[in-house]
Amino acid sequence: MKPSNPKGMRDFTPALMCKRNYVFGILSDAFQNFGYMPIETPAIENLSTLSNKYGDDGDKLIFKILNSGNFLANLDSLSNTDYLKLTNKISNKALRYDLTVPFARFVSQNRNEIVFPFKRYQMQNVWRADRPQKGRYREFYQCDADVVGTDSLFCEVELIQLYDRVFNDLKIPSIVIYINNRKILSAIIELMGVEEMFDEIVILLDKIDKVGFEVIREKLIERKINSDAINILEKYLSIVSLKDLRYLLKDSKIGIEGIDELQFIFNSIQITGLDSSKLLFNPALARGIDYYTGSILEVVTDKIQIGSLGGGGRYDNLTSIFGLQNISGVGVSFGFERIFIVMQELNLFPADLEKNIDVLFINFGNKEANYCLPIIKKLRSKNISSELYPSSVKLKKQMAYANNNGIKYVVLAGEEEILSKSLTVKDMKKGNQYKMSVEDLISLVL
Amino acid sequence: MKPSNPKGMRDFTPALMCKRNYVFGILSDAFQNFGYMPIETPAIENLSTLSNKYGDDGDKLIFKILNSGNFLANLDSLSNTDYLKLTNKISNKALRYDLTVPFARFVSQNRNEIVFPFKRYQMQNVWRADRPQKGRYREFYQCDADVVGTDSLFCEVELIQLYDRVFNDLKIPSIVIYINNRKILSAIIELMGVEEMFDEIVILLDKIDKVGFEVIREKLIERKINSDAINILEKYLSIVSLKDLRYLLKDSKIGIEGIDELQFIFNSIQITGLDSSKLLFNPALARGIDYYTGSILEVVTDKIQIGSLGGGGRYDNLTSIFGLQNISGVGVSFGFERIFIVMQELNLFPADLEKNIDVLFINFGNKEANYCLPIIKKLRSKNISSELYPSSVKLKKQMAYANNNGIKYVVLAGEEEILSKSLTVKDMKKGNQYKMSVEDLISLVL
Repeated sequence: MKPSNPKGMRDFTPALMCKRNYVFGILSDAFQNFGYMPIETPAIENLSTLSNKYGDDGDKLIFKILNSGNFLANLDSLSNTDYLKLTNKISNKALRYDLTVPFARFVSQNRNEIVFPFKRYQMQNVWRADRPQKGRYREFYQCDADVVGTDSLFCEVELIQLYDRVFNDLKIPSIVIYINNRKILSAIIELMGVEEMFDEIVILLDKIDKVGFEVIREKLIERKINSDAINILEKYLSIVSLKDLRYLLKDSKIGIEGIDELQFIFNSIQITGLDSSKLLFNPALARGIDYYTGSILEVVTDKIQIGSLGGGGRYDNLTSIFGLQNISGVGVSFGFERIFIVMQELNLFPADLEKNIDVLFINFGNKEANYCLPIIKKLRSKNISSELYPSSVKLKKQMAYANNNGIKYVVLAGEEEILSKSLTVKDMKKGNQYKMSVEDLISLVL
Repeated sequence: MKPSNPKGMRDFTPALMCKRNYVFGILSDAFQNFGYMPIETPAIENLSTLSNKYGDDGDKLIFKILNSGNFLANLDSLSNTDYLKLTNKISNKALRYDLTVPFARFVSQNRNEIVFPFKRYQMQNVWRADRPQKGRYREFYQCDADVVGTDSLFCEVELIQLYDRVFNDLKIPSIVIYINNRKILSAIIELMGVEEMFDEIVILLDKIDKVGFEVIREKLIERKINSDAINILEKYLSIVSLKDLRYLLKDSKIGIEGIDELQFIFNSIQITGLDSSKLLFNPALARGIDYYTGSILEVVTDKIQIGSLGGGGRYDNLTSIFGLQNISGVGVSFGFERIFIVMQELNLFPADLEKNIDVLFINFGNKEANYCLPIIKKLRSKNISSELYPSSVKLKKQMAYANNNGIKYVVLAGEEEILSKSLTVKDMKKGNQYKMSVEDLISLVL
């Protein structure tokens, strides 16, 4: 049997794990520095919790878990060959598809214990039965930070600062944080007189970066939208300043509300300053996710064409699907796997990230090894990672192991060293070698 | 719709997460200090990788994943009502059941990249469709450390020291590490003349702690084992010293081999010393897991009756199921969930473990809040976790939030503080309150 991973699933070697943990560390440090607390939810949710939350296409990509035991026991007959109907009879659990829906369930379920406003972060795997391709996996991490229980725009301000902090710490250059507001989009679509097409137009806007406006224009003509309406959209998309936008939407209550919100956020960010990101209004930003109702955000770097490195927005009613009304929230997501690719391609990982072993003790036989054991114990207690080569194979093989594992110092302790209660220590980087005491070795490494 | 978790699955609140991360931190620090490197494998494996590895009972507890899309498409007919046969036709993937089998797959699959001896640790969730009960969940963490590619007994010595180190760092008292050797068990069963009953007797020995020897005796009589053989087993179980054991097994080559191995390990541990654990020979220790072939280990604390906190042993042929022959390995597992329960019940978690926010800035309105924002930014850059209360609700509500979240200092900055460019800071523990500069606040917190 030839061993293999399932399609789209990855093993992580020590070298990769050290890099991944570096990014996770920067994220969790920033989250906690900003007052966000960790939570975790189970990998497995009730299928009913996840169904009908991600659209028809999303539902198909949910990994369903077969009921345990005789899953056929309670079926009347197996003559029904509609697999969708059968699914719900033989599966009542599924794998986490994102972190947002489980978070909404968590908040609704624990509403009596939670102190609102509640700030949480969550870094966990999600699973999607998507077609695997470069940079897209069937198991991947999501890293989310959310505040729920307040509609204050200072939360948006804080989350923009959080983006700035994280990407600055990761040293990813040319970060732009785009911002828009779903209320502004509503006002424009109202002005166009096509309110019933909101979802459709949002989806078109999300594609504008790739296809350009002329393709959008054709699609709208096909859908029998009149040229006045299309011109309004074109004009809107060319707007750069909030002042011009305010003039265009001067008669729309919801439009002015959205602009006021944007203005408030820009104002506070101006006072506070950002370390290395730019915050820009982007009229084309739409984020076609059903539950957004106010501010929307997206992060890109101009250095690499890879799509967004993060996104988020305000949702006024996410927990209502689980029976908890009137809880406004706002959250951002960090695209961990894409961030990882950018870090790799721009060579942004610090050297020596791998937690290499500090000291390897060569094994010259049982007597010599037993001489080393208490010394190794002492080193470890000083927080120096150390190990004995397990068997007394040829010195050449043991030195090759040291080289392959990036070990910093190699200790050679034979007959002579035992007699003189000393150690011969080889610095693997410099190549030189000295006789010294255990205390000398400890000072050398620390 | 009333939200709920699936049976046996848990949400983790911030308070729980901080405690869990404390234990994970001690484990990973110790692993790396001993030269073990992290790896991760995917949650989802091919069903063929997991099937027939855990016995018939184990196979039933594996969570199987329904194939995506129309899983009925390639079925001839649905008249077959044998659910076990149908399972393999509609499911080809499953959730990780333990860390050992995926690790064996990982080693076999990456044999050409791995430098042997290979020391790895792995801390990941596993899933079992077991009946949930107190302390037993359907999703739980396993934490394993293994060395593969050497049969040196110094690995066993190192893993015993690792147990000592971790339980010492966790401050769990009265730790006993029991040790035995499957070769000794083989020799005894040979001496009894019942080689064909090896598995059965191993399973009986595992129960002896709970049921006592008389129940075992009855079972053996039922199975028509003669009294001479039963007396040998009884005598064996009463042995304390390796010297007596050596006399009992003097004519068994494999028995003497097992005793020599034990003697070697005890000798090295004596030289090195253990910080707070005891290492004891336990003739009744059997660990009924198929793949063990040499040393076997189990950890308990005498303080709480909760069963083993860890276990492990040597396996000579684990990777051969995936086509990689002659790779001996030895590993130990830490029972994370039980360790957590012991820590809770013995009150071993340090106080102030929760990553509480250092400073909360009271929100008196937009003008005052915008005065605070650059100060909050400065504090955060000094690694002081800080936040602004998002809205200008009543002071009493904001102070209640500070109390509920264990916040250390509360900053009150109104009209007067803005004019004098200062802050009023309340120490939430001591209750006193002073006016100070931003620099004073930074020194106060750090």
